[in-house]
Amino acid sequence: MTMHQPPEVGLHDALDALFRPRAVAVVGASGRPGNPFARPLQYLTAFGFEGQVFPINPAYDELGGLPCYASLADVPATIDLALMMVPAKGAIDLMPEVAAAGARTAVIFASGFGEAGQGGQSLQRDLLAAARTHGIRLIGPNCQGVLSTTTHMYGTFTAALENGPIATGSLAYVGQSGAVGGSILSLAGERGIGLSSWVSTGNQDDLDTVTVGRYLIEQDDTRALAMYLESATDEEAFLDLASRAAEVGKPLIVLRSAVSAAGARAAASHTGAIVGNSAAFDATVAEFGVIEAHDIDELIDLAHANTSLPALHGSRAGIVTTSGGAGSLAADLLDASGLHVPEFSTSAQAHLSDLVPEFGAVENPVDVTAQIFRDTDPSDFIDVCRRVKQMDEIDGLLIALTLVTGDFATRTAEALASLVQDSAKPIVVAWAASHEQTADARAHLKSMGLPVYDSVGRAARALASLRRITQPSASPAAPVWAAEVARIVESMDGAVTEAGGRALLAAASIPVPHATLVTDRPSAEAATTQFKSPVVVKIQSKRILHKSEVDGVLVGVPPHQIPDTFTEMMERFADSEPDGVLVQELVPSGPELIVGVTTSNGAVPLVTVGLGGTATELFRDTATTFAPVSAERARALILQTRSSALLTGFRGQQEYDIAAVADVVARVSQLAASAGPRVGELEINPLRISHDPTRPVVALDFLMRLITKEND
Amino acid sequence: MTMHQPPEVGLHDALDALFRPRAVAVVGASGRPGNPFARPLQYLTAFGFEGQVFPINPAYDELGGLPCYASLADVPATIDLALMMVPAKGAIDLMPEVAAAGARTAVIFASGFGEAGQGGQSLQRDLLAAARTHGIRLIGPNCQGVLSTTTHMYGTFTAALENGPIATGSLAYVGQSGAVGGSILSLAGERGIGLSSWVSTGNQDDLDTVTVGRYLIEQDDTRALAMYLESATDEEAFLDLASRAAEVGKPLIVLRSAVSAAGARAAASHTGAIVGNSAAFDATVAEFGVIEAHDIDELIDLAHANTSLPALHGSRAGIVTTSGGAGSLAADLLDASGLHVPEFSTSAQAHLSDLVPEFGAVENPVDVTAQIFRDTDPSDFIDVCRRVKQMDEIDGLLIALTLVTGDFATRTAEALASLVQDSAKPIVVAWAASHEQTADARAHLKSMGLPVYDSVGRAARALASLRRITQPSASPAAPVWAAEVARIVESMDGAVTEAGGRALLAAASIPVPHATLVTDRPSAEAATTQFKSPVVVKIQSKRILHKSEVDGVLVGVPPHQIPDTFTEMMERFADSEPDGVLVQELVPSGPELIVGVTTSNGAVPLVTVGLGGTATELFRDTATTFAPVSAERARALILQTRSSALLTGFRGQQEYDIAAVADVVARVSQLAASAGPRVGELEINPLRISHDPTRPVVALDFLMRLITKEND
Repeated sequence: MTMHQPPEVGLHDALDALFRPRAVAVVGASGRPGNPFARPLQYLTAFGFEGQVFPINPAYDELGGLPCYASLADVPATIDLALMMVPAKGAIDLMPEVAAAGARTAVIFASGFGEAGQGGQSLQRDLLAAARTHGIRLIGPNCQGVLSTTTHMYGTFTAALENGPIATGSLAYVGQSGAVGGSILSLAGERGIGLSSWVSTGNQDDLDTVTVGRYLIEQDDTRALAMYLESATDEEAFLDLASRAAEVGKPLIVLRSAVSAAGARAAASHTGAIVGNSAAFDATVAEFGVIEAHDIDELIDLAHANTSLPALHGSRAGIVTTSGGAGSLAADLLDASGLHVPEFSTSAQAHLSDLVPEFGAVENPVDVTAQIFRDTDPSDFIDVCRRVKQMDEIDGLLIALTLVTGDFATRTAEALASLVQDSAKPIVVAWAASHEQTADARAHLKSMGLPVYDSVGRAARALASLRRITQPSASPAAPVWAAEVARIVESMDGAVTEAGGRALLAAASIPVPHATLVTDRPSAEAATTQFKSPVVVKIQSKRILHKSEVDGVLVGVPPHQIPDTFTEMMERFADSEPDGVLVQELVPSGPELIVGVTTSNGAVPLVTVGLGGTATELFRDTATTFAPVSAERARALILQTRSSALLTGFRGQQEYDIAAVADVVARVSQLAASAGPRVGELEINPLRISHDPTRPVVALDFLMRLITKEND
Repeated sequence: MTMHQPPEVGLHDALDALFRPRAVAVVGASGRPGNPFARPLQYLTAFGFEGQVFPINPAYDELGGLPCYASLADVPATIDLALMMVPAKGAIDLMPEVAAAGARTAVIFASGFGEAGQGGQSLQRDLLAAARTHGIRLIGPNCQGVLSTTTHMYGTFTAALENGPIATGSLAYVGQSGAVGGSILSLAGERGIGLSSWVSTGNQDDLDTVTVGRYLIEQDDTRALAMYLESATDEEAFLDLASRAAEVGKPLIVLRSAVSAAGARAAASHTGAIVGNSAAFDATVAEFGVIEAHDIDELIDLAHANTSLPALHGSRAGIVTTSGGAGSLAADLLDASGLHVPEFSTSAQAHLSDLVPEFGAVENPVDVTAQIFRDTDPSDFIDVCRRVKQMDEIDGLLIALTLVTGDFATRTAEALASLVQDSAKPIVVAWAASHEQTADARAHLKSMGLPVYDSVGRAARALASLRRITQPSASPAAPVWAAEVARIVESMDGAVTEAGGRALLAAASIPVPHATLVTDRPSAEAATTQFKSPVVVKIQSKRILHKSEVDGVLVGVPPHQIPDTFTEMMERFADSEPDGVLVQELVPSGPELIVGVTTSNGAVPLVTVGLGGTATELFRDTATTFAPVSAERARALILQTRSSALLTGFRGQQEYDIAAVADVVARVSQLAASAGPRVGELEINPLRISHDPTRPVVALDFLMRLITKEND
């Protein structure tokens, strides 16, 4: 064989090599039946992989009917993908051979890396270094591998495939844990959910779940992407994935673990994961309509609906049920899932009354009662479902069956399957009867690829998950003053005081109180004539970010006392090397907003608003999204907080000028964006709101922390 | 046959006749196979009912191998129970015959009563009247009947038993909806949950779910009681049931529907139910450890655990898992279910380390990894589970299995079954693999009566539901001043003003501000000398319950202006026939509490506390329990609100005298209790709290509404 130079491997090529390799080496393939490391070769040969497969193991001449090679160097062809079933150290040592054989990508199955203490972490660093040196991209280590039903590439040892391959379908899945991935395969198979691709990234030393997910969302064979995440450290990448999924209209379903302290402890010892910043994750989920699952079975429930049913274009759900009780429960659980169960109009009710039996109900829920099945013919029932589905008054339909069983159940299922498949609106079916009594009916719906939920609550959540966000809010264009802000910030570093920030607020036209910086006794004397009524005096020091907490703010100082106050404060805070004191007019009282922009570790800037005061602190009543925001988006953000009722006319009080408030919040977020990536934190606290029409909003304080410039 | 006089039927006798009849008449039994009304007779004869069965139908001489009678009058024995499968009107007309035949109880299956508009409601009233006249207690109408596995009395037409009887067990179930009840029977059968009794009460014209539940909770064959409730109108009865269940240590599991507006609409048209007051229900659930299910499958999950596993005597859960990912999820979901997943001590970890494979984890979750099964022997795994179970550091154990499949799964299940059955601590098993791949293993655990949950979240909730409340808080003894309060209230009626209530507050030693009632110009002149600083002046009228809302409270009135203020207010409110104005000292500012006692429609008095102000209103941050309360319980109630942080040293502020606050809250609740059942509403708003050590709590306002006395 020829020696290859380490190729320049692009990410896309490496992932193509993973899912669509022409030739695969199975390094360390086992010949012992029952050994997990015997499975990838078995699966590749048994499930119809069309590329070439080269088992590598010096102990065998032949394995699974294929010639077996002593080493990668002996393989008589160029390989694209190496499945590495050798122990940790061996995997590292083999990297040069893997590269020499032509592979662009390797899957490392072995444990004993980052999840196994300091020694393992060191090995994991070595593995990545070796892969980088030789131009190899990695899945793993400590993973269960990869499969693609499109190419029949089964590079995994999951036991979930022992009974046969998974059906080909449109669900792509990627997650860290191999065992959780195996459960998902097993449960998806049982429900009849077809997959396109499946990946366990394990310790994800190189390629992680989000990177793999970003590739999969672009693939034509992916209709929906499901992910199991033990961490989301790269928030920017996750944001990019979620935004792309929303753009191409493919549902992104995410199950997150390691949310609690104990869960995080488990994840750390399991894959060495460190849990990411939840605020950015939450903002991404909200902004881009990411579907959150909270357990494995819920992920399966939601994946099933999202690969087999159309999207829900509104929040209005109809219910048809064989049981008033189940209908009442369904209404409760749809409501809890965020959908609306409207009462039908009189004309809509009239349109159902000839089919619904005497003691049923036509209001929505529509209760057809067991009477409708008296002559064991499901056609009346199906007609009711069809008429409800066609109503303009609803966007989707939940059908709640109870004890519809036996042969009759099968006929009902057949008619239901046609109805669901032909419908442009989503129809979910809940069937609260034992599988024994409904086996054939369920088998039919399964063969049609349609979900049946065992409970109304699960069906309700599935229906709600089909709702797509219509349009993520666009970022506003950079304001005309952005360059001016950038220029001012260029000269700043570290903590920026309120006095220092006034030029920035002025550039952004954010209203501030009348104020003057007093730096010496003469300027203090001059200030006494600038103010006619009592003032606020605040210490200004880069070392004091939170002035109130150290009694650095004095309120109601008479103007003639400004010089003495100046002297007192400068002495009291001498250790903090103050720049001076800011003397400020008193502003009319009113509600106060906190507006903060933070850039978290993943460099995703977030803007948070909350009405100041104890309510915000006690109830964490804040709203967060990506910065910058338009005034329109800022308004929606403010209205997301419950405390915003205080601005919009609480208990009959006069409402405040919310448009002006939203405008200032938007400006604050745009100020932070204009200041650039060095802004670690920027906060206006408080933003005072009043009924003064000439100045309805005033920024009473300001702080900004710039990430210190590195020496060039 | 002899004619019987209508017997004086006690409730207990009537329910004994329902579950343990010696002779049953099946009135309107059908001989047509497939007709639902053919089923009760089939079930009674096929499933081994040992009493006598008398089919009644003039169309047959014989039915199901038994002689069939033309009418009840022809039955040659005294019957205890009549199963009435005749239409609505017929059931009413037959009441005299039912009574004459000796029956104490009748089950009315027919629809067309209260759920079917005005005509049906009228029929339902007639039915009850006829039953009362003839001394018959009723189940139904519009129900699916009753069964007892202890006596094999299957008085139901549910299709859930078409494949055979339900296993005998210790779960008693009662609910309104027959279809939901049928689903529960069907699903319980599939899971292997044995039942003792099952009842569908339908429109519950006479005996309702709570009354039946109260009987069932006393039965020796009931280990746990599950209920499906579409309403709980009789709060006092539900409270009595919950309190008795807690007393005898039997879990009470409740699935409530008709919680949302649409759900309530559905229930109203279904069984004519009117949804009860949710505050009293919620207080009952909290106080007596009622277990709430939110869906049919969750009710089944919780019932299974509560009839097969021991109670959980603490909140600390251990986790043993074959997958780090599943362990991390389990930790999250136990945490979300209110349990605690403690990290194990070093010694406990050391005790596991010889069994847990190298790349596993011993901290809790204990991750044994798939390695532990390398030699396909489950004994190491079971040993790990046993050691964890025995640790003093945990109170219960969740075992999360992923792809443990096939023969090996069966051996694991056998060993697990022994472990779970021998354990004094509860052990729940989650198995996230397809039923196909684990069929024998699941069948074994099912045959042992043990639950296996399909997801870690469901297992976590089941484990958490096994926690029993140790001791519901006892009502405090009546205070010595109770008689004095009762005496004062005896002379009152309707709305009681603040001035009128001062005697009551004084009797209960509830601190009030110094104040004087001014009723004319001379008393107003006299008041000017009683106060040295500005006062509060409040209008006093029985017609003005909320004085602030009509500008009936003036704050900061100088003493010399009291007379003019009096005159102005009396003129302004002349239409409300005021008693005068109350002139009150100003009290130091501080946080304010609202304390209210209400007696809801079911006559269960509830006390609610909330810190006054916008936070309470915006965030509904209040806590409610049954009145009266002890000072200790009042303290716990106050601390339940998030706003209570403002009293306990929020942000480093000095804490308030919470013991004094709790004492006053307790006195308010006892005042309401002493005032007796005529109190519709009693409110102290605000209760001002301050740092004044001589008077840390002052009731600044008072209102009480007494239910108007009926004319004797």
